[in-house]
Amino acid sequence: MNENYTVADYLLDRLAQIGIRHLFGVPGDYNLQFLDHVVDHPLIDWIGCANELNASYAADGYARCKPAAALLTTFGVGELSAINGIAGAYAEHLTIIHIVGAPVLKSQQAGLLLHHSLGDGDFEHFTRMAKEVSVAQACLTPDNAESEIDRLILIALSEHRPVHLVIPCDVAIRPLVSKPAPLLLPQSILSTASLKMFIESARKKLVNAKKVSVLAGYLAERFNVQSLLKHWMNEVPLPHSALFYGKGVFNESHPNYVGTYIGAASDPEIQRLVEDADITINIGVQFVDTATAGFSHQLPIENCIFIHPNEARVGHQVFTQIPMQEAIKALHQLTLSLAQQWKLPIINQSPLPNVSQSEMSQRYFWHEIQKFIRPNDILFTDQGTSCFGAAELTLPENCQFVVQSLWASVGFSLAATFGAQLAEPNRRVILLIGDGSAQFTVQELGTMLRNGLKPIIFLINNQGYTVERAIHGPEQPYNDITLWDWTSLFKALANKHSAFVRHITEPEQLKCALQDVVNCDQLAFIEVVLPKMDTPKILDAISMALKKNNTEK
Amino acid sequence: MNENYTVADYLLDRLAQIGIRHLFGVPGDYNLQFLDHVVDHPLIDWIGCANELNASYAADGYARCKPAAALLTTFGVGELSAINGIAGAYAEHLTIIHIVGAPVLKSQQAGLLLHHSLGDGDFEHFTRMAKEVSVAQACLTPDNAESEIDRLILIALSEHRPVHLVIPCDVAIRPLVSKPAPLLLPQSILSTASLKMFIESARKKLVNAKKVSVLAGYLAERFNVQSLLKHWMNEVPLPHSALFYGKGVFNESHPNYVGTYIGAASDPEIQRLVEDADITINIGVQFVDTATAGFSHQLPIENCIFIHPNEARVGHQVFTQIPMQEAIKALHQLTLSLAQQWKLPIINQSPLPNVSQSEMSQRYFWHEIQKFIRPNDILFTDQGTSCFGAAELTLPENCQFVVQSLWASVGFSLAATFGAQLAEPNRRVILLIGDGSAQFTVQELGTMLRNGLKPIIFLINNQGYTVERAIHGPEQPYNDITLWDWTSLFKALANKHSAFVRHITEPEQLKCALQDVVNCDQLAFIEVVLPKMDTPKILDAISMALKKNNTEK
Repeated sequence: MNENYTVADYLLDRLAQIGIRHLFGVPGDYNLQFLDHVVDHPLIDWIGCANELNASYAADGYARCKPAAALLTTFGVGELSAINGIAGAYAEHLTIIHIVGAPVLKSQQAGLLLHHSLGDGDFEHFTRMAKEVSVAQACLTPDNAESEIDRLILIALSEHRPVHLVIPCDVAIRPLVSKPAPLLLPQSILSTASLKMFIESARKKLVNAKKVSVLAGYLAERFNVQSLLKHWMNEVPLPHSALFYGKGVFNESHPNYVGTYIGAASDPEIQRLVEDADITINIGVQFVDTATAGFSHQLPIENCIFIHPNEARVGHQVFTQIPMQEAIKALHQLTLSLAQQWKLPIINQSPLPNVSQSEMSQRYFWHEIQKFIRPNDILFTDQGTSCFGAAELTLPENCQFVVQSLWASVGFSLAATFGAQLAEPNRRVILLIGDGSAQFTVQELGTMLRNGLKPIIFLINNQGYTVERAIHGPEQPYNDITLWDWTSLFKALANKHSAFVRHITEPEQLKCALQDVVNCDQLAFIEVVLPKMDTPKILDAISMALKKNNTEK
Repeated sequence: MNENYTVADYLLDRLAQIGIRHLFGVPGDYNLQFLDHVVDHPLIDWIGCANELNASYAADGYARCKPAAALLTTFGVGELSAINGIAGAYAEHLTIIHIVGAPVLKSQQAGLLLHHSLGDGDFEHFTRMAKEVSVAQACLTPDNAESEIDRLILIALSEHRPVHLVIPCDVAIRPLVSKPAPLLLPQSILSTASLKMFIESARKKLVNAKKVSVLAGYLAERFNVQSLLKHWMNEVPLPHSALFYGKGVFNESHPNYVGTYIGAASDPEIQRLVEDADITINIGVQFVDTATAGFSHQLPIENCIFIHPNEARVGHQVFTQIPMQEAIKALHQLTLSLAQQWKLPIINQSPLPNVSQSEMSQRYFWHEIQKFIRPNDILFTDQGTSCFGAAELTLPENCQFVVQSLWASVGFSLAATFGAQLAEPNRRVILLIGDGSAQFTVQELGTMLRNGLKPIIFLINNQGYTVERAIHGPEQPYNDITLWDWTSLFKALANKHSAFVRHITEPEQLKCALQDVVNCDQLAFIEVVLPKMDTPKILDAISMALKKNNTEK
């Protein structure tokens, strides 16, 4: 027993036990005491960000590479600034422990007129708000601290979603009698009876099928079944594809890999191959409007098997209490025995087309990026031309593709890249982001340099919200933004740190930059000037669908 | 009747009727149709910001100069990014109409898997969150649009607080049969019986007093009673002072003005004069911890009369339904008849001290700012060394002093300055902000230039969160920030716009810059480098109190 061992230390030890090595956030006077314990902790580093929204995005990016992330903000102002990032993590199943430093318990109980409160003596407004976007909430007291910390961490891990943990300054530094015991991690609940029924039902569907295919979505990545899937696809000859929001789940150079499926916005050959199956096995798929060009996918439910995180479905039948892993293993075995009766279609993987080099265009840019990316890269794209352009890439092996699919908060990827590069210091992290998006969260460019990180950043300067121009009002002034001098701006944020900086307006410059950056061993900031009205092909199709949805009565 | 007249036009006409001329926000695909109507509106200009939090702060700054402000965001991501700014407006009584562009009603009702939703088919999560920080909420439908728009605007105006108005894309462009009739503005409710009892009770207190003084807080400004107060102080010889969060309510060069009262952190002579009164009349006062150096004010309730926005108190007695204006007029008359019996203390307004010019210091900087400010200026300060330094200024006549007193969200003032300068194009708006604070919201420096505004900005570069160093952990790494090259950064944001830019490290440079800026007719960005550990005197006293509060058990 250590006399100086406190609630703060207990919490930090728990975070360390679940693999967290960095705590993102912004200091504020209600969390400074807690921060003293962070600074002293042997395993956890403090990562100060320029503001809380950016910090929450960074935590999300970190949680995309690690089992969990942690975020520290101050009461009221801090937690609310971060809440959009927390909502994104909730929507997209990222595990974030959001710690909020709060006024001392006694002051809360007395309803004092404290700064960062609404002035009405009610200190629970923000926890009530957090309830909508987190799976559990707690306000620590001396009596409940250990049990509530454990409860929240376990729920966060088992549900892959954020929790909201309020820690009053006085509780943070409260002594505890013992260090935490090992944490018993939550086990997914499996009903063997349910699994058996699922297998039987799936068998009936599959045994009569002539053409069976597999489609993956981003939840497959979130629930860590990529290696199971790859193993399955290597053993069983099945045509397989991924939703745009599931790119990277499969090995895209596999001979049976069909391509990226985006409903009616797909490459026609890919669309034909995916929709032609008698039975489609969907793994971790969410048919979000933007991933399906406005629900234009043609995959009737009665012809589908669905594997969700904790349940499986055959057509309209639901089988609960089946973890994704178990369902995949079962279908792997089942299809192994049946595959010989199915017809594998001929899949022609289109070779890299020749693209004119006479001027800079979206087409030329993505063509060069295709040649630039390599195995194990992590690609971050933002919800603009960058993700829709990148959707057409064929990813090298073990390439991780990140887009905030469902929540789609503009600017997310810049700060999330920061978090991911901290989590994966030995992988090449590449950010592709437009100028409109980067303006939301630009501060964290400086923070990356301060922390000695070296991602490769492509800033697509097309003078505004081109993604919105494609949807509505191409020439309307609201799609214009303030135009910045991006390379000068970057240098000012870098200040005394050196970096690889380029301003690209010609194809030849892009070629040179892509060659030089490979060995530069510095953070790279490459501004690529592209025409304002130029859009990736896929975006045109998707924006037509969104436009229609937004005017429908 | 105009065939093309829509719900969007109705809403915009209502905003114009209540004096709104600018709509702040960020476009998103659920609000683009609405934005077409904004662009076409003859009286309202669209003001696009770099992100939603900044836009909400800008709206707050605007509402500090106009009767109300309006903010437009998109569903989910946009409204949550702005919610910290809305909470600040709620805490501090600013009228903001927050308009949220949402998916078409039919899609919401069908629970579709739309981007910017949490993916669970529930489209009311964010309205439930907004309930905690707004006085009314509505989701418009074709049937309720006109009545709900009117209801929300009237509540916002009468309560001086934000409302949350969700407008689905299809409802925005829905035709209406008639333009709005004139809006009948809400009247404050006055109970003459209550007022009579209040006057009687106040008379009993005052008639026996020997020394009576008046103390004002920021709600006096928010509820627009400054001119009534000034008239009163000119007619009745009463010593009067203001809380730090009420500076500018009184004319600080009035011979009976005592100074700024901050409890135990006050100048001793001011503290003595304020606390020595038998009866203190408090107008729009909130004794927030940071305004009173941790509740160190010595003004026993039984010796106080309180005038709040809609009620008055004498000691512990409460008199409801008395608008602030009416209570002030009544006390004006009452004190006029009694003042001759009270003793007016001798008030020595301290002359401007001589300050050494040998090196840059907080003391020297504020001394020069004191000489620089002039009548009618609007001063924005942030919740750091800047507001605590500015607290010691003696304001020239009609100078408006802004600090986000209660909510105290760091970075607020930069974007709020933008909003205020748009609202008051003919007044000199001066921003005083530290480097740590400015990093939160830096983007809007560019937006100010894009809109042709010319505030005068002092960026106090003291390498981090000096306000927090004063409270806790002066040498701890969490109070350090990423160091930027501020003048280069500003130039990159300014891009092709010209501006007055200075980097100040020596007293003589500051003197010159302050002389030159007066006639420059450009936005001025003056970076003033000050020592990392140098703090304004008042901050030291307040931080001691906060430190104590945060460790109390």
